[in-house]
Amino acid sequence: MKRLDTTSSGFSSAFATLLSDRGSEERSVAEPVRAILADVRKRGDAALCDYTARFDRLTLPPEKLRIGAEEIAEQAALVPAGLMEALRVAARRIEAFHVAQMPKDLDFTDEDGIRLGMRWTALDAVGLYVPGGKAAYPSSVLMNALPARVAGVGRVAMCVPSPDGVLNPLVLAAAQLCGVEEIYRIGGAQAVGAMAYGTDLIAPVDRIVGPGNAFVAEAKRQVFGHVGIDSIAGPSEVVVVADGKNDPRLVAIDLLAQAEHDEQAQAILVTTDAGFGDAVAEAVRVELETLPRAAIASKSWDDHGAVIVVRSLDEAADVVNALAPEHLEVLLDDPRGFSALIRHAGAIFLGRYCPEAVGDYVGGPNHVLPTSRTARFASGLSVYDFIKRTTTIQADAAGLRRIGPAGVALATAEGLDAHALSLSARLEKIGPSS
Amino acid sequence: MKRLDTTSSGFSSAFATLLSDRGSEERSVAEPVRAILADVRKRGDAALCDYTARFDRLTLPPEKLRIGAEEIAEQAALVPAGLMEALRVAARRIEAFHVAQMPKDLDFTDEDGIRLGMRWTALDAVGLYVPGGKAAYPSSVLMNALPARVAGVGRVAMCVPSPDGVLNPLVLAAAQLCGVEEIYRIGGAQAVGAMAYGTDLIAPVDRIVGPGNAFVAEAKRQVFGHVGIDSIAGPSEVVVVADGKNDPRLVAIDLLAQAEHDEQAQAILVTTDAGFGDAVAEAVRVELETLPRAAIASKSWDDHGAVIVVRSLDEAADVVNALAPEHLEVLLDDPRGFSALIRHAGAIFLGRYCPEAVGDYVGGPNHVLPTSRTARFASGLSVYDFIKRTTTIQADAAGLRRIGPAGVALATAEGLDAHALSLSARLEKIGPSS
Repeated sequence: MKRLDTTSSGFSSAFATLLSDRGSEERSVAEPVRAILADVRKRGDAALCDYTARFDRLTLPPEKLRIGAEEIAEQAALVPAGLMEALRVAARRIEAFHVAQMPKDLDFTDEDGIRLGMRWTALDAVGLYVPGGKAAYPSSVLMNALPARVAGVGRVAMCVPSPDGVLNPLVLAAAQLCGVEEIYRIGGAQAVGAMAYGTDLIAPVDRIVGPGNAFVAEAKRQVFGHVGIDSIAGPSEVVVVADGKNDPRLVAIDLLAQAEHDEQAQAILVTTDAGFGDAVAEAVRVELETLPRAAIASKSWDDHGAVIVVRSLDEAADVVNALAPEHLEVLLDDPRGFSALIRHAGAIFLGRYCPEAVGDYVGGPNHVLPTSRTARFASGLSVYDFIKRTTTIQADAAGLRRIGPAGVALATAEGLDAHALSLSARLEKIGPSS
Repeated sequence: MKRLDTTSSGFSSAFATLLSDRGSEERSVAEPVRAILADVRKRGDAALCDYTARFDRLTLPPEKLRIGAEEIAEQAALVPAGLMEALRVAARRIEAFHVAQMPKDLDFTDEDGIRLGMRWTALDAVGLYVPGGKAAYPSSVLMNALPARVAGVGRVAMCVPSPDGVLNPLVLAAAQLCGVEEIYRIGGAQAVGAMAYGTDLIAPVDRIVGPGNAFVAEAKRQVFGHVGIDSIAGPSEVVVVADGKNDPRLVAIDLLAQAEHDEQAQAILVTTDAGFGDAVAEAVRVELETLPRAAIASKSWDDHGAVIVVRSLDEAADVVNALAPEHLEVLLDDPRGFSALIRHAGAIFLGRYCPEAVGDYVGGPNHVLPTSRTARFASGLSVYDFIKRTTTIQADAAGLRRIGPAGVALATAEGLDAHALSLSARLEKIGPSS
């Protein structure tokens, strides 16, 4: 853990180091991923079977790669009722927020008499990648599948690897809850390739979303353009802005809730109260003694954690905007006042009773958020990932008379004569206004 | 030009061939681009000067790579008044449409007493790439810079190569009209690298937009993730849906307006009237005799053009949805009725007096649109490219009591104990509802 203080002379360079922390991009899997994608494109299902045998130690004929409706139901039935109810609470709230998020179409006639519009339509088919093993989070299924459903996507296909054939009941229950019925036990770059290019078994999709390991991320990067992808997630981070009125233990737990994700995660406390910062650091040490995932969390905290002491909340806002964090907790008396100063953050959690974990599960807004400072230009997952815009222009003869000549002038200046002619030939035909 | 007819037995395979036409992706410039980006990242301005000397035959010290305010004004003053006025008409209409496009924030308290929000904020800095030479279109400057301005982007930097030192007055006039003052005479992958990573001369931006050659497209692909990019444009296409009541010559000109862009462009007529299709094909031949860019347009038409005869407008809509064209002209009696059947298109031009060229210049909606069937999942450039969302969640003690327990259950099931603890420790502290 690093201690930074804006009053110290070394702050600028220490903060610059913190900003570029975790910044190096590993691209070493590009070549193997390229080979897998080419193989899936060429050999289709046969390639899927081979890679599933090799990477997941699971030898199956192609048709068995799809998880049948009965098998899904059997697995989902293994989930305890209380947990099923918790999934339902989460699903209900996530769905409601994303319904509120749906944008409206535009349709208006402007002062030149031109009727203009913008129409949102859903994608036909979306592929959802769900990681296997321990990182298979049912909450992630809800967060990816429900916005697609709310957006009106007709077909949602899901790929989730089952190492050694072991399925995850919670993941399948979450999929069932979202109405996802087309599920394949396939993972890695081969799953991304199958969804992007299609095989006999799996029809191609238009966009692929969902988290994954380095192979999955690189595969998404490589199929980008042929299909759409969501943003490629890096390690997760939280910034907690807290004054001295908070319970240091609660703040410590919030920081560790980020740190326990993985060793590359980053948890940063920004505070106006140096003594409080020390108390939180001490509380982190104490909590780590009993935390089950202490090995991961303490490595994250040691390598990437930071306590930044600032002179004022204005200065805190500057620090937050420079960090552009995925998650921001504002544990202050006037959280909304502070929040108004923030230009770059994926999601903001306001008040002392709203830890970031609320947003991971039951808050409603999406938990798939821009990481590693990309909140400067990127947004969290949303219904916008599953719809696209078509603009419309309708002009009658009078409208064309009004705006056409400027178009002729510009097309001619750009040397695009057929463009100019498509306007001028019509203008000639309709003649001047009578 | 290919003739297809939905009543013929070979239609399916011929249409499949048409769909995969122009589909092969060239990646041969990946390595040289990687080298240029690494060099710009390492040597900064010195690398920019070297590449500008090598590729644009222009040897200048770093500080001269920026085009000064006086030089911009001198160049802009060369543009004839009539053309300047046409640029102003276009700018006014583009700006007005993009203002209408700006989305609204969300802020509401839901039935569980949780206050939820979604806030749109502008990017801090955007880089605009403008191609040099003949493909330097002033309309493209307007279409890229104005949405950024409307969105509220604070800094718009522009890079435009000037081969042999020759500037394009129209491009600089368009930039001036959009309030873009930070302009560099740099092109290619080196310009993309400079804007993405920053040099002494050029501060880094958060997102890079604008068209370019294969080097520019590959460079954008490689810096994606470090900064945002717009979609990578492929060759342009138009589908014209027309009945027999149209003037074949006007339809032929509209097809050629697409074909004249470049040899890879694709123009397709879809019609219910086979005789009309023949008349249009003949009119194309006649127009090509006098069209200045006939060499390009005829190669595009020969290699990629098509006339598709369909049995009904419903069938026409199916064909259009499968093609997911960048541009769609609907030259029918009831263009809006037909348009309602279209799920995938970048932009639709409605009615016999609204050729696609209206949208290239003065319509108002953006002319930067998804090409090569990517309208299945992608949208045109818009204010959405220059803003991003931050979601907010605010819960008080009562709200946390209501939704917190479901979060504890899910976090525990996912094995994320600090997540669960951040909720349960607060729930314990506030106690049950009194």
